[in-house]
Amino acid sequence: APPAKPARLGMCAACHGENGVATTNADAPHLAGQKAVYLRAALHQYRDGHRDHPVMRAMAGPLSDADIDQLAQWYAAQTPSKGAP
Amino acid sequence: APPAKPARLGMCAACHGENGVATTNADAPHLAGQKAVYLRAALHQYRDGHRDHPVMRAMAGPLSDADIDQLAQWYAAQTPSKGAP
Repeated sequence: APPAKPARLGMCAACHGENGVATTNADAPHLAGQKAVYLRAALHQYRDGHRDHPVMRAMAGPLSDADIDQLAQWYAAQTPSKGAP
Repeated sequence: APPAKPARLGMCAACHGENGVATTNADAPHLAGQKAVYLRAALHQYRDGHRDHPVMRAMAGPLSDADIDQLAQWYAAQTPSKGAP
């Protein structure tokens, strides 16, 4: 069964879309179909500052490890869309 | 026409695949169909250390701005594969 919608998805969806196809923010990457292990590592790096990105640092700051895992699983399970460059 | 194969592609393909579907390295993200502007920004951040990742710092270090643009265009033009989680 596809993963349940994470509680914190709304915050991410603003730029990345609920389905991980990022059409609302030109700079935001597509997340759909990305590897969960990579998404998880990236979120940890934003949270702990190993990636120097003010917006994502603010977004990831309040996330728990469980939030991060849920969001990584959710976006990894989405279908990438080639059509939205 | 699809972009020409970048001169430096081989170095990236080792982990990310020539087509951006990263099957050889469990931690390496898929790059196929990602936004070129995002891939470009990420490579600049690896090159200048704003992303603290030893391997990618070493990979991106020698890249010129032109190399970075070519690699970003190349991978953005590839077709993402949902099948390779």
